Amino acid sequence: MDKMYGELTVLSGTANEALAGDVCRYLGIEPLPADIFQFPNENVFCRLHRSVRAKDVFVIQPMCSPVNKNIMELLIMIDCLRRDSTGRITAEVPYYAYGRTDKKYQPRVPITARLLADLITVAGADRFLTVDLHARQIQGFFTIPVDELTALYMFADYITELGLEQPIVVAPDVGAVRRARNFATRLNAPLAIIEKRRHADGNGMEMLNLIGDVAHRSAIIIDDEVDTGSTLTRAAAYVQTYGAERVYACVTHPILSADAAQSIRDSVIEKLVVTDTVPIAPEKRNLLGDRLEVLHIGPLLGEIIRRIHEGISVGDMFPE
Amino acid sequence: MDKMYGELTVLSGTANEALAGDVCRYLGIEPLPADIFQFPNENVFCRLHRSVRAKDVFVIQPMCSPVNKNIMELLIMIDCLRRDSTGRITAEVPYYAYGRTDKKYQPRVPITARLLADLITVAGADRFLTVDLHARQIQGFFTIPVDELTALYMFADYITELGLEQPIVVAPDVGAVRRARNFATRLNAPLAIIEKRRHADGNGMEMLNLIGDVAHRSAIIIDDEVDTGSTLTRAAAYVQTYGAERVYACVTHPILSADAAQSIRDSVIEKLVVTDTVPIAPEKRNLLGDRLEVLHIGPLLGEIIRRIHEGISVGDMFPE
Amino acid sequence: MDKMYGELTVLSGTANEALAGDVCRYLGIEPLPADIFQFPNENVFCRLHRSVRAKDVFVIQPMCSPVNKNIMELLIMIDCLRRDSTGRITAEVPYYAYGRTDKKYQPRVPITARLLADLITVAGADRFLTVDLHARQIQGFFTIPVDELTALYMFADYITELGLEQPIVVAPDVGAVRRARNFATRLNAPLAIIEKRRHADGNGMEMLNLIGDVAHRSAIIIDDEVDTGSTLTRAAAYVQTYGAERVYACVTHPILSADAAQSIRDSVIEKLVVTDTVPIAPEKRNLLGDRLEVLHIGPLLGEIIRRIHEGISVGDMFPE
Amino acid sequence: MDKMYGELTVLSGTANEALAGDVCRYLGIEPLPADIFQFPNENVFCRLHRSVRAKDVFVIQPMCSPVNKNIMELLIMIDCLRRDSTGRITAEVPYYAYGRTDKKYQPRVPITARLLADLITVAGADRFLTVDLHARQIQGFFTIPVDELTALYMFADYITELGLEQPIVVAPDVGAVRRARNFATRLNAPLAIIEKRRHADGNGMEMLNLIGDVAHRSAIIIDDEVDTGSTLTRAAAYVQTYGAERVYACVTHPILSADAAQSIRDSVIEKLVVTDTVPIAPEKRNLLGDRLEVLHIGPLLGEIIRRIHEGISVGDMFPE
Amino acid sequence: MDKMYGELTVLSGTANEALAGDVCRYLGIEPLPADIFQFPNENVFCRLHRSVRAKDVFVIQPMCSPVNKNIMELLIMIDCLRRDSTGRITAEVPYYAYGRTDKKYQPRVPITARLLADLITVAGADRFLTVDLHARQIQGFFTIPVDELTALYMFADYITELGLEQPIVVAPDVGAVRRARNFATRLNAPLAIIEKRRHADGNGMEMLNLIGDVAHRSAIIIDDEVDTGSTLTRAAAYVQTYGAERVYACVTHPILSADAAQSIRDSVIEKLVVTDTVPIAPEKRNLLGDRLEVLHIGPLLGEIIRRIHEGISVGDMFPE
Amino acid sequence: MDKMYGELTVLSGTANEALAGDVCRYLGIEPLPADIFQFPNENVFCRLHRSVRAKDVFVIQPMCSPVNKNIMELLIMIDCLRRDSTGRITAEVPYYAYGRTDKKYQPRVPITARLLADLITVAGADRFLTVDLHARQIQGFFTIPVDELTALYMFADYITELGLEQPIVVAPDVGAVRRARNFATRLNAPLAIIEKRRHADGNGMEMLNLIGDVAHRSAIIIDDEVDTGSTLTRAAAYVQTYGAERVYACVTHPILSADAAQSIRDSVIEKLVVTDTVPIAPEKRNLLGDRLEVLHIGPLLGEIIRRIHEGISVGDMFPE
Repeated sequence: MDKMYGELTVLSGTANEALAGDVCRYLGIEPLPADIFQFPNENVFCRLHRSVRAKDVFVIQPMCSPVNKNIMELLIMIDCLRRDSTGRITAEVPYYAYGRTDKKYQPRVPITARLLADLITVAGADRFLTVDLHARQIQGFFTIPVDELTALYMFADYITELGLEQPIVVAPDVGAVRRARNFATRLNAPLAIIEKRRHADGNGMEMLNLIGDVAHRSAIIIDDEVDTGSTLTRAAAYVQTYGAERVYACVTHPILSADAAQSIRDSVIEKLVVTDTVPIAPEKRNLLGDRLEVLHIGPLLGEIIRRIHEGISVGDMFPE
Repeated sequence: MDKMYGELTVLSGTANEALAGDVCRYLGIEPLPADIFQFPNENVFCRLHRSVRAKDVFVIQPMCSPVNKNIMELLIMIDCLRRDSTGRITAEVPYYAYGRTDKKYQPRVPITARLLADLITVAGADRFLTVDLHARQIQGFFTIPVDELTALYMFADYITELGLEQPIVVAPDVGAVRRARNFATRLNAPLAIIEKRRHADGNGMEMLNLIGDVAHRSAIIIDDEVDTGSTLTRAAAYVQTYGAERVYACVTHPILSADAAQSIRDSVIEKLVVTDTVPIAPEKRNLLGDRLEVLHIGPLLGEIIRRIHEGISVGDMFPE
Repeated sequence: MDKMYGELTVLSGTANEALAGDVCRYLGIEPLPADIFQFPNENVFCRLHRSVRAKDVFVIQPMCSPVNKNIMELLIMIDCLRRDSTGRITAEVPYYAYGRTDKKYQPRVPITARLLADLITVAGADRFLTVDLHARQIQGFFTIPVDELTALYMFADYITELGLEQPIVVAPDVGAVRRARNFATRLNAPLAIIEKRRHADGNGMEMLNLIGDVAHRSAIIIDDEVDTGSTLTRAAAYVQTYGAERVYACVTHPILSADAAQSIRDSVIEKLVVTDTVPIAPEKRNLLGDRLEVLHIGPLLGEIIRRIHEGISVGDMFPE
Repeated sequence: MDKMYGELTVLSGTANEALAGDVCRYLGIEPLPADIFQFPNENVFCRLHRSVRAKDVFVIQPMCSPVNKNIMELLIMIDCLRRDSTGRITAEVPYYAYGRTDKKYQPRVPITARLLADLITVAGADRFLTVDLHARQIQGFFTIPVDELTALYMFADYITELGLEQPIVVAPDVGAVRRARNFATRLNAPLAIIEKRRHADGNGMEMLNLIGDVAHRSAIIIDDEVDTGSTLTRAAAYVQTYGAERVYACVTHPILSADAAQSIRDSVIEKLVVTDTVPIAPEKRNLLGDRLEVLHIGPLLGEIIRRIHEGISVGDMFPE
Repeated sequence: MDKMYGELTVLSGTANEALAGDVCRYLGIEPLPADIFQFPNENVFCRLHRSVRAKDVFVIQPMCSPVNKNIMELLIMIDCLRRDSTGRITAEVPYYAYGRTDKKYQPRVPITARLLADLITVAGADRFLTVDLHARQIQGFFTIPVDELTALYMFADYITELGLEQPIVVAPDVGAVRRARNFATRLNAPLAIIEKRRHADGNGMEMLNLIGDVAHRSAIIIDDEVDTGSTLTRAAAYVQTYGAERVYACVTHPILSADAAQSIRDSVIEKLVVTDTVPIAPEKRNLLGDRLEVLHIGPLLGEIIRRIHEGISVGDMFPE
Repeated sequence: MDKMYGELTVLSGTANEALAGDVCRYLGIEPLPADIFQFPNENVFCRLHRSVRAKDVFVIQPMCSPVNKNIMELLIMIDCLRRDSTGRITAEVPYYAYGRTDKKYQPRVPITARLLADLITVAGADRFLTVDLHARQIQGFFTIPVDELTALYMFADYITELGLEQPIVVAPDVGAVRRARNFATRLNAPLAIIEKRRHADGNGMEMLNLIGDVAHRSAIIIDDEVDTGSTLTRAAAYVQTYGAERVYACVTHPILSADAAQSIRDSVIEKLVVTDTVPIAPEKRNLLGDRLEVLHIGPLLGEIIRRIHEGISVGDMFPE
């Protein structure tokens, strides 16, 4: 064991205090007491109740709604820690927003996923820890060390226990193919892909194509994030059209923006399996009812944090 | 004239498009056409309609409500410009949020005003242009060149035209003293100061003291920003108690958070003179009615931008 | 036109002087005269024959074999330019090596594609210009502006002219799906995908699966780079097994390492269409004979360079 | 206790070896033996007698006269420590020069207080520790953690013991108001302010105004630094004119440049209370005689250093 | 002992595994198991078999042939370590290539020795450790701490044991004079210098001059590096012409490029004494036979590494 | 001509206003009007009278006595220029102090010459221009472009005109050998070297050795800087002892610290030829009388500045 830093400490922002609580319970510690709030003029403020000099602090803050406020809160907490001479600051961001803005797929657009990495670094983070990035290349947007966890193993265990007959993994668009392939490998199941493309007459409409054969199979759609749910529900309807008997979906980050919860409730998806990297509003939970299965990622995060603190390999936890 | 960069170009974020319009009218140009919007998942996106290669771009974006979203939007616009090979990027931020978090007045707090400067710089801004910072030392939080304008001259002209008898300038707290002294010098008026301090028994209550003599005078309270309005309205009531006959207030940035508009309407302040660095919601304008006087800062900003673009002195515009 | 920099200048490294020659011919200029060579101790040296003070210099150097020497040569040329007060340095790297090391797909490995971006930046490049990156996210590994061109349009024109019946685009592995989808969209053709995965018993062998239907169709395999050719030739054989009538391959960067040329000559691939971002050794050209079609990318690069120099939009060249 | 670094070590520059001695005595250690001197060509040199690999080194060097030589000496000592692989370097600068150049109050001037922060950081300091900055915003000029101590508590204890009747705290100019308010709060005394402004006819002369009522009171003027003494002595004369019965002054840094000592001796100030952050030349001490009271700040600095070394809260030492 | 970091760990690149083995044997540890190899496309890859979180890692990699590949391998190993959260990374580069490109001795050339320092730093090294730089000023090309060892003591011991009569140290060119003076001081021997200059008629030919008197003496030529051997063999012949009875050469880095081994074998040099900072190919060893004496530097490097790890002075090992 | 920046502008610090005047006369411009002075507390201040937005500014400031104050003044002027949005800042430092602290020749010392380069860069300089560095490797301490001029050509012309019989160039210590060789080449004269080394019994005394034959020759000692003059005068006496008939000295920077002028006057040196990179105090000029010959470097500097401004090669001015 090679421990370079002081006491293991967890600071939770306001974005997902329940998850931070799970992590702390796993670690057997209390979160660092602090006031984190907005003044009437919306300025976020942060005051720690105890000194963090030389300590090994993990800031837990997913970039969920309100997204931009939570990002600023994260940066401000990091600045606060740095200026109090923290030994080491790990930004623990279970959900990384702006992941889809990770390249210039057209001219004159930003690469916000890289910008965010620079903001986190300039604020003073020493390390970065996250779960299921939209693209793994985002790791390379950082120069500080990144540990990226995945919920795929949890999803695979869950699906395996269901004992589905003839499962097939479905990538709902070309961006999800690699993730779907990895998931299919683990389930020892075949793979199908839904491909979206613009209509040839340039009217802006998208057409779907299904590549692979889903007939008489249980389709498990996999993705990193469910936003408005339209990709997911259209994919589900589409595979059903092509003969899939049942449709499941495994998605790490349940963003569920706009009327996503209603759309999914109205869809053919039997079960939406997600993690709690981001909180789900109670009314959305109610709307989804039994269709929603939330897997708890806190213990996994807690174990990773323990290993990072103690200088033990994180990679050894995951076969690959 | 020493012009190093390409065509003068203005890009407006969504925070204050009216002001950007004024600036463009003054300059006789159109704002750069661009899509700037939020996806359903709140992620801000920016796409320029025209190339900005080598151009001299000024991004106009005050950090007003929604504060944190507007900050992120600013940073994303800068990143977008940088990646399109803009010649020079000037962040034109008429209102700088988080100005009060400019030092550690107690242990274990952030210095967010410095953090913001670092974020703007790492995003790729080459220069910074702003109006009436909370503390002028914030200029030193940047290494890129900063031009700070002031609305004091506009306020002085306005007040002078009123032809008030026996005016006295009032600093509503010790942080505003230097600004009040400068304003008083320009008006050739005396100065009074309201000092807040905690109660000696540590019960957290604040007591006010008035230093200076306001009796039978027209008090003009000066400040950089009106937030909830409590500092301003308490100061107004206080000077009235001590004999001030009329009370005016000159404040650069009309944040007017919470029920500030109602409080001011209910106060003894006859006239609240502000600028349009930040937009005022129509219902607040209605509430304040004739008590509110908005001075237009667009032409001044436009002139500054023209001078910066053409390499002409900005400082020469202001006597000091 | 917004021209900030001095005379347009091209400096060619030793990696692909023929391509640099094409670019210069397009631009109607001579390459900058310079000595670039290795001393007997393999140390690369560079001496410019003319001053480049204030000039707008494009360094043309793909990272082809000898890869690491060519990378160092690129960095040394950039350092040389910087120290001679060049106005602006654009690293024009038509082929970016180490693109497959763009993420940590397993623990304890480097992200060399990011490291390279940092090396190029610290050496002093102001901009980066490349062709068909392995993953577009590599753009975000840079903070300096990146322009990424694609050969897809050239390939699409070539294939369209062939007038193939029932073409289908084939992604030879999951990493190539997005590129294949874009190509298929342009050709208005369907898409098939070959998926590699490890054998379930962990013996390290890879199994292929074909997703999609290639029977009686002309398969066009698309990829960014052909290295040893094993992915390509296995994919070709595989689609033939599943009924494809003819097999073509379009690959931007003809690395052709080991005995790739012989493998392809022995394969069912009728035509390997590539560009000349990297030179092909004469013996490989001979071996491949008519099977090889090399499209010349010099004029496209020249036009881009002209536009960048003159401050004209590059994005407008490409519909998307 | 979270101790990350090696042995606690103090390196004293030549600026205030007496203070460094006090600090070491408090800590029960010897200063690091070193040769620090100037060659005949004025080049400062530094050679440590013992290795500081991995040690936790505090460099004690106020920026007092000769100011610029002492600054360079500080930077050179930091470079020397960094290159010898010191574990952590804390620049302990009890007096920070150039504090008044902390903003552009007119165009075309430097912000030297920020420049200094950058110099200290680029030389290699990891942390910064100082006493009573001219403006607390200077903390934000640093990105490395800053601890700012204050002598206000020591002054308050001293004044309280004097048992003055009807004390009033006087800010000698508007820049000192916040400090004076804090001091007045602690003494539970009222506040008066002297305001300087230029004459209306622009002849460059300054006029003083007294805001507040000092009649029949014991005035205690507070400031961060006494330079030529003219601000202080004019303020003292002025409050006496307005009826103050006795005049004291509490000033953290006794710079006493030009003939400050003589001016103060000739003034109505009964007692000038200072600290020993900077040394006072013997002839000035003699001149001031009993009027001068020097409070020793070494033990306070020593205690802070001990806490920083041991990872204990510094903030807890001070109520606020 | 002040140990800040975790377990002492050595990672060897492929450049000189024998030397790394010697170092590990001295330290009583095994090298870190890792796969370091080139793919068929020459891309270097690195995969560590064990986690290095928080460990104190020394990467041993001289920049010998193949020079540019070994440099890239070094940088990639450092990136790999950094991204696995190594506690501290020391680049241990026993031979630093490009040392002769350490200044612009003519216009429009690079300073590659500085560039290399920046590459190593940006890749993530925390410290640098090397042997006999071409110019000691190269230390200043780094901001990270540098320890430079010298083989002079080993050479002096070897020569002293030979018991030569009337030894004289010879600098083979003006760049070697300082090194030769230091060596001569240690041997208590006089010094002679060979000076090369261009022919006055500008025909590019070099003329040699001998300064000092070598007649009837045993000449010991000293240099940092033997490359093609032409400097060395010409110097040897030259001193013989002027009457030297025997000629020895002590050179730290036996690069021996081109036909250096044959030239030396054909020369009047009786003994070429070198170290094993870089490996010597067996055929060159055979060619040189008894004329070659290789001193083992592994134990010295091992001791230095032990001291750096344990926070003990390195400088104390060497009198000066 | 490739002119990227605005008007050519010269800002002179207080270190050598006469030289700046010469440069301006050559360029046919007036120096930028500015107030540069010290407050009574020794704080240097700088205020420009005219805007420098977008201009191409050269700051002329040698690092002569008072050395550390002049260095700070240089940095403060650069900061001032940067914050006023100067187009390009070239630090023109005709004499670079601390050049002898360019390496760690013993443990636990700084490398101040590198530190200075970092200070100049962090203050905001874009380019660096200097004359005869102590070691040319100091160029590599900068990442910004460096132009180093030499006075050797001026010295060679002067000496040639003297028409000395049998001249020999003498390096007064091993550090000056390369410079002396270059000078000798230009004069087509032989070379002699004086070597200093410590006494074998470690008593700290230095012994001199002369290598080469100076008998009956006119010795011209060459060095970059004359400080206390002891190296020079001892060398002069030494070569006379060995039979030199006349002794001259050519030294670029006449620092002349301590009683250097008197020592030289008392020495056998017939003529001390220097440049005016640094001013010589009148009393020293008087003391030296006809022995001193000051060559004016202003026109050369002026020409270089003109070329840099206009983007013309500087290197072409000097054959090599």
